[in-house]
Amino acid sequence: MVEDAFRSALLTDLYQLTMVGGYVLAGKAGQRANFDYFFRQVPDNGGFCVLAGLEQVAAYVRNLRFTEDDLAYLESLGLFPEPVLSYFKEFSFHGDLYAMPEGTVAFPQEPLIRVTASLPEAQLIETALLNIVNFQTLIATKAARVCIAAEGGVVIDFGLRRAHGPNGGLMASRAAYVGGVEGTSNVLAGKAYGIPLRGTHAHSWVESFPSELDAFRTYADLYPDNVVLLVDTYDSLRSGLPHAVQVGKELKERGKSLRGVRLDSGDLAYLSQRAREELDRNGLQDAGIVASSDLDEWLIESLKKQGAMIDIWGVGTRLVTSYSSPALGGVYKLTALDENGRKMVPKLKRSDNPMKITNPGKKVPIRIVDEHDQIRGDVLFLVDEDPFEEAPLVAFHPLYSHVRKEYPAHFKREELLVPVLVGGEPVYEFPPLEEVRKNTFRNLSRLDRAYKRFHNPHTYHVSLSKRLFEMKQRLLVNSGIG
Amino acid sequence: MVEDAFRSALLTDLYQLTMVGGYVLAGKAGQRANFDYFFRQVPDNGGFCVLAGLEQVAAYVRNLRFTEDDLAYLESLGLFPEPVLSYFKEFSFHGDLYAMPEGTVAFPQEPLIRVTASLPEAQLIETALLNIVNFQTLIATKAARVCIAAEGGVVIDFGLRRAHGPNGGLMASRAAYVGGVEGTSNVLAGKAYGIPLRGTHAHSWVESFPSELDAFRTYADLYPDNVVLLVDTYDSLRSGLPHAVQVGKELKERGKSLRGVRLDSGDLAYLSQRAREELDRNGLQDAGIVASSDLDEWLIESLKKQGAMIDIWGVGTRLVTSYSSPALGGVYKLTALDENGRKMVPKLKRSDNPMKITNPGKKVPIRIVDEHDQIRGDVLFLVDEDPFEEAPLVAFHPLYSHVRKEYPAHFKREELLVPVLVGGEPVYEFPPLEEVRKNTFRNLSRLDRAYKRFHNPHTYHVSLSKRLFEMKQRLLVNSGIG
Repeated sequence: MVEDAFRSALLTDLYQLTMVGGYVLAGKAGQRANFDYFFRQVPDNGGFCVLAGLEQVAAYVRNLRFTEDDLAYLESLGLFPEPVLSYFKEFSFHGDLYAMPEGTVAFPQEPLIRVTASLPEAQLIETALLNIVNFQTLIATKAARVCIAAEGGVVIDFGLRRAHGPNGGLMASRAAYVGGVEGTSNVLAGKAYGIPLRGTHAHSWVESFPSELDAFRTYADLYPDNVVLLVDTYDSLRSGLPHAVQVGKELKERGKSLRGVRLDSGDLAYLSQRAREELDRNGLQDAGIVASSDLDEWLIESLKKQGAMIDIWGVGTRLVTSYSSPALGGVYKLTALDENGRKMVPKLKRSDNPMKITNPGKKVPIRIVDEHDQIRGDVLFLVDEDPFEEAPLVAFHPLYSHVRKEYPAHFKREELLVPVLVGGEPVYEFPPLEEVRKNTFRNLSRLDRAYKRFHNPHTYHVSLSKRLFEMKQRLLVNSGIG
Repeated sequence: MVEDAFRSALLTDLYQLTMVGGYVLAGKAGQRANFDYFFRQVPDNGGFCVLAGLEQVAAYVRNLRFTEDDLAYLESLGLFPEPVLSYFKEFSFHGDLYAMPEGTVAFPQEPLIRVTASLPEAQLIETALLNIVNFQTLIATKAARVCIAAEGGVVIDFGLRRAHGPNGGLMASRAAYVGGVEGTSNVLAGKAYGIPLRGTHAHSWVESFPSELDAFRTYADLYPDNVVLLVDTYDSLRSGLPHAVQVGKELKERGKSLRGVRLDSGDLAYLSQRAREELDRNGLQDAGIVASSDLDEWLIESLKKQGAMIDIWGVGTRLVTSYSSPALGGVYKLTALDENGRKMVPKLKRSDNPMKITNPGKKVPIRIVDEHDQIRGDVLFLVDEDPFEEAPLVAFHPLYSHVRKEYPAHFKREELLVPVLVGGEPVYEFPPLEEVRKNTFRNLSRLDRAYKRFHNPHTYHVSLSKRLFEMKQRLLVNSGIG
């Protein structure tokens, strides 16, 4: 049963089912609604997120059915009368789902996913959508940050043993690859997604031999093309490194080469410099230095500044759990509702906290790109506006009318959402995952470094079109207490 | 394919497979080894952990097989010669796995799980074992802390939407129940594990009606026996609460009752006091107050101190991700190895960091219980010692010979590990999950509150028997550089 978790219609919060039941019983099952998925804050106080998880969301939504078993369980709860159980039994999703492609760089307060469907359909997919996209986007974002810190050095995901369960590990490896890592230790992710695999041996390999040198030699004999030796089982400088150098020289005599050594504890800056010297002095310039041990973007940045000679960064726990900020608070909010068969009426959620006031209506987010292919801001339009109208574009701060931005007419405008499901049918071809990863790189290359730094990044502007701004102001003024 | 993640033999790090291949090729596949699973530090600098995940680990290990598909993938990597692929093809686990029952309170440096098997068998299960037990133990521990903070108040898991993927959510709900929560919003967890379900409606329900009062009334009409009204869609005090009171009175006239109101934002201490007053003044003393909104043990403790009138705590993100400490660093270390067919030789991993020096040998952890059924310390014995020998017990600090503890002869001694798999065969009957949860409560009731506080908890002593201590000292002195 556990294996089916990923596709189950029961992967939801009970209140979604009681609300759906309520909509059915109250005659509201046909009412059409628009929901936006967006986040309000970037994890780690960063400047951007990288969207991931869309492929799993689309598969979930398309295949959403209640099995006989599910229905029997729901009936056993004694909560749902017959018309509701029948609704569940007949259920499949017939709505529209638009989304940013995976690997898109995204910012607070803009819709990353837009769902237009009947109220119960839109509600039934909420929890799974949030669960899948919040997590994968969190990890893809973390991976992108780690890769930025590595400044072109190779980053490998080593996190499976500390990920949140088996599937948490698999999805983390997928998302980390979307975010830019080059390989993973996770064999299942290699098989499922074609992610390149990396790994050689652990301390237990060394300890299982009479001596470290025996262990290294045996490994080099058995896998002569993939020799990365872990040097800290006993003492990195006094034992591991000299033994690795010796085996490296022996490999060289056989026409093979030592691919690298791995440091897994101690002062990685100092040890890597000493290792580089020793390897170079012994003619092993080709051998790389792999480092692991509670790495994240902050530590990598610091090690880089200290002149660490590390070529490959094995990042585990702090990547796959996004340790320093382990949840993305993405939400899914009602923004428009067809009331009594009239056209969709925009909905706004008030709050004392200005960050929590939603942007009403069914919206089209547009990205503004300058002549150097740098992205300069996003603007939200209403769906019945023409965002490509030729003219300088004046965009409004989400709340304050005196704060405006003007984008020159020659800046290009790109639509951010693509149709994924239309009337429940799939209309989007998901690219292979290595293309998604390239998409991430391309997106990040269009984003100025000021948005990418870890401390106090520059704020990327998400603004509103004039019509959307004015409509929001009207709703803010009019919306009293319900 | 994703659905099978939970049981796949490929749910492992590549280096486990290259090491296994190495053992096979180097003629070491029959060498018998002992590995311990333990942790060195309690998350959140807490005083204890609650073990969870054993049932999933046992199922994983028992069912571990490489499918044809797996073998084809491994062959395609070009890393493994024929004898290794054949080994994988024939593989199943024939070793012994001993473990603490789920719900056991556990402490740093003691074996929670002990695996005795051939080197490759023990190595092949490492990653999945770590992944499953690290995560579930992390969440069960967090849940126990949250329940301690709630001081007998009801705690409900609301975290699915922020958990690390679908299965991360399911396993988090399971572990949270083991740790003491009373229910979950996660319908799949309800079905899979019989966990009681909780939940009524969200803001979108309220927004989909012309008025809040309409929304509340409709809900109360449809689900008259399960009315908990979310009062903060517009304004908790000025709108939500008066409307809930009105509907509560109407329910009362019909012989039904308002079960509660839910506060999801704002100052929960103040709002809950005001809500209690309003409900009581209107004869709705039976209606409970549910609070949610980024709760964790620290915030609940603080709200309690401020006199918050909250009966039910809905805890989400910070529970299912263990937000303030999102990974348990459990490890799985070689502690003994049969060398050349002789008896098992104890193995010790040295480190400059005293916390990282392992306890060698195949060990039996014993719990010392006083006459008031309070647990007073754990002592690790070697497997060929008799831990129940009648006499006062002198136990040694893991490193320093001058630090000893003496336990009186009348203190009871309990063995902590039970056999789960023997020769690969299951020998342990897993209790129903509600029994496991009771086991947690019983265990926690035996632990003095000094170990349970959140700030600077008292350190629970895990000591060594005299023989184990002396053996470890010998190995520390003798172990030079390998």
